Amino acid sequence: MKKNISSAVINRLPRYRRYLADLLDNGITRISSQELSKKMKTTASQIRQDLNNFGCFGQQGYGYNVELLCEEIDKILGLEKNYNLIIIGAGNLGQALVNYANFKNRGFNFIGIFDINPKLIGINIRGLEILDTEKLEEFISKNDVDIAVLAIPKNQALDVAQRLIKSGIKAIWNFSHVDLETPDDVVVENVHLTDSLMTLSYRLSEKRK
Amino acid sequence: MKKNISSAVINRLPRYRRYLADLLDNGITRISSQELSKKMKTTASQIRQDLNNFGCFGQQGYGYNVELLCEEIDKILGLEKNYNLIIIGAGNLGQALVNYANFKNRGFNFIGIFDINPKLIGINIRGLEILDTEKLEEFISKNDVDIAVLAIPKNQALDVAQRLIKSGIKAIWNFSHVDLETPDDVVVENVHLTDSLMTLSYRLSEKRK
Repeated sequence: MKKNISSAVINRLPRYRRYLADLLDNGITRISSQELSKKMKTTASQIRQDLNNFGCFGQQGYGYNVELLCEEIDKILGLEKNYNLIIIGAGNLGQALVNYANFKNRGFNFIGIFDINPKLIGINIRGLEILDTEKLEEFISKNDVDIAVLAIPKNQALDVAQRLIKSGIKAIWNFSHVDLETPDDVVVENVHLTDSLMTLSYRLSEKRK
Repeated sequence: MKKNISSAVINRLPRYRRYLADLLDNGITRISSQELSKKMKTTASQIRQDLNNFGCFGQQGYGYNVELLCEEIDKILGLEKNYNLIIIGAGNLGQALVNYANFKNRGFNFIGIFDINPKLIGINIRGLEILDTEKLEEFISKNDVDIAVLAIPKNQALDVAQRLIKSGIKAIWNFSHVDLETPDDVVVENVHLTDSLMTLSYRLSEKRK
């Protein structure tokens, strides 16, 4: 497999996967890049280009085998294995994320929840007891944690991120409203909800002008 | 103000706003593009280019007036006014979004919550009673709704989106795991959490190779 695929292509892959899984659910086993492009409101050449990055799966006159393509994308996205997640921040958002069944279906399993709020520590969420954030390092050393999710206020996020990195965590899913500074071997994916809402309000304002 | 600013620039504006607000909180009233670029891990020329899109606020040898720039970005993002939001889907994620205080501080106020689940209808969240989704059209006709938030399963999302659009809603913040088809005068901002998590797992897998 080629390395150095552009992040734009990578960011599009989950969307391909979503459409392909829908096709499979509807019993559709093969599709041309033209048909797929209509569904996805993109161009057939973009689809062919994107998917060619990962080897040529489409056959002239036949199109793509949906199931094979779906499996291949799963492999590329690293979804053929399971991931253990911990989350720091058991407030409303943190609890919502832990309760989101879709993640578990895709192989993302929460194995630890942490908070500093004494009112939350000890409470049970989906069979997991909320632990004191003080126990973070101990927990990571005893468990195989792949991904840490940050759902805490920004004034705590930088400190906790440093502790996670020192403990050997290599992937952070960051919902805290701050950009993290991380070494090159740590990957961060940000979900800045307020930024997204502001982008929406900008676009709405422009339409109203 | 120029029109047709690229969406890449628009997507960066909330991040500028975040850094500028932090500077203000720390009592810093002016900053050069060089200093700002160091903080934001971007280039000074990118900052100057981005901000020049909206008129020239930086002065040679002085830099940017942080407060003015912040105010100007607020105007551009449409944040000088308040927005009324409704949310469809009062599950964990929906409730977390309603409870997220940060949105209210920025002028985004939830005025209605809807769900089809009889167990949820009638429950009070932050002073708002969860209403039956059947009452959606009636509520929109009687209230001034700017933005509708979709936090429902994908099999309901397409239908509800059509009802929102028929009722005159022009902005949808979509957390449902499906792409919406909307007319040109309706703006949609997607937050596809599972897609984001898959992108993270891809990047983690690549690092581990």
